[in-house]
Amino acid sequence: MNILLVYAHPEAKSLNGSLKNFTVNHLQEAGHQVQVSDLYAMKWKASLDGDDRTDRQADARFYPTHDSRLAFENGTQSEDIAREQEKLRWADTVILQFPLWWFSMPAILKGWVERVYAYGFAYGVGEHSDTHWGDRYGEGSMAGKRAMLMVTTGGWESHYSPRGISGPINDILFPIHHGILYYPGFDVLPPFVMYRTDRMDETRFSNLCTELGQRLDNLAHTTPIAFRQQNAGDYDIPQLTLRADITPDIYGFAAHLK
Amino acid sequence: MNILLVYAHPEAKSLNGSLKNFTVNHLQEAGHQVQVSDLYAMKWKASLDGDDRTDRQADARFYPTHDSRLAFENGTQSEDIAREQEKLRWADTVILQFPLWWFSMPAILKGWVERVYAYGFAYGVGEHSDTHWGDRYGEGSMAGKRAMLMVTTGGWESHYSPRGISGPINDILFPIHHGILYYPGFDVLPPFVMYRTDRMDETRFSNLCTELGQRLDNLAHTTPIAFRQQNAGDYDIPQLTLRADITPDIYGFAAHLK
Repeated sequence: MNILLVYAHPEAKSLNGSLKNFTVNHLQEAGHQVQVSDLYAMKWKASLDGDDRTDRQADARFYPTHDSRLAFENGTQSEDIAREQEKLRWADTVILQFPLWWFSMPAILKGWVERVYAYGFAYGVGEHSDTHWGDRYGEGSMAGKRAMLMVTTGGWESHYSPRGISGPINDILFPIHHGILYYPGFDVLPPFVMYRTDRMDETRFSNLCTELGQRLDNLAHTTPIAFRQQNAGDYDIPQLTLRADITPDIYGFAAHLK
Repeated sequence: MNILLVYAHPEAKSLNGSLKNFTVNHLQEAGHQVQVSDLYAMKWKASLDGDDRTDRQADARFYPTHDSRLAFENGTQSEDIAREQEKLRWADTVILQFPLWWFSMPAILKGWVERVYAYGFAYGVGEHSDTHWGDRYGEGSMAGKRAMLMVTTGGWESHYSPRGISGPINDILFPIHHGILYYPGFDVLPPFVMYRTDRMDETRFSNLCTELGQRLDNLAHTTPIAFRQQNAGDYDIPQLTLRADITPDIYGFAAHLK
């Protein structure tokens, strides 16, 4: 497979840096092609703005969606953006690796999503009609590709349990899993989450690598999270609410799981 | 009151720009002191890294938490960070205003949180013991202050309803409300959310301003979201799970509401 690892940690000698190196080696030894977008090393520009379109007139009003669409259609996107899109087209599987900072991805990775996910590429794709609200949530440019999060957190596993104070990890990650990965069509694999990573010794690291290696060996065979497709009949369109006769007692993120 | 508006939109002539101007004028006319952190205009550095500590040795390994702590304790934080912390100390109420991009705040604002929320300032505060797990979730440096989100989204209100495809808006915003605002002690007010903002005409804008004005007039009196305090007896420590005898059938984000 072709595997893209998008990696966001500022320190190469960190636990995340070691896990990144382990991952790349492990995948390559298994015969995969691997590309790494090491966002800090690349000095990735995090903030989406008018400079992301190279042919914009300096005094023109900047419309994030409209300008993204024009730049994508006309091939006038900033080169760093186009290069990441090319990596996404190339990849069969995408891994986003990051430390959980304030219950979400680091800003530099959020800015990768915002800038690389152009209109016409990751959203604004497909027909809009009374029965089909764009190619999204299970359809889209990334359909047929797989994606997985690799996440470290200093918190304990119990803090992210169903009644843990942080909120359940799957709910904390839902906006990323469903809103960033499933939206443009990825099949989303269960995340690989590592807790209490400020307490790491060689034994724990070794065990972690064994467990991670098994997950990496099964990338192609792991069952994705069973999100519901938007345009397959489960939702009323254009309200995009789950049909009244489907699991009528379930609300919230859980309603979008089959 | 002293009110800090942290504002994240790249275009001054945007709807968000107009709403920001309305907000500042409205609050000042009501007699409040207002400071604005216009992150794009300030060219705010979004990515947390080793440069955020001015006295770090260039070849030293960078530990985000450890370096943040030393820089905060020793007064060697990057000046832009110290300045924002001073604004937070000054403020009685903080408003974060942003367009919802990919179901969270824009990268530039996430980077404001990551960099300004230093160890010793917004986390790592207070005693850690068997009965008190740091001053957080209802206690902390921001205790006694209020915070509110002002959020625009192109999606429809139904898409963010209890069974809407995006997930309920209060769940989408929980990691910000609970994990970023309640964590260091803010009382968190219900958000002011504006939907379908790509369809805006003068009548809608005028109605929106009327509604927003009323919310701003009531900042001091609005009842905050009733999150549970971490150290007030509802949670087992150190597991930080809700006590088994409290609403035993409720799981997920909703469990953390009284």
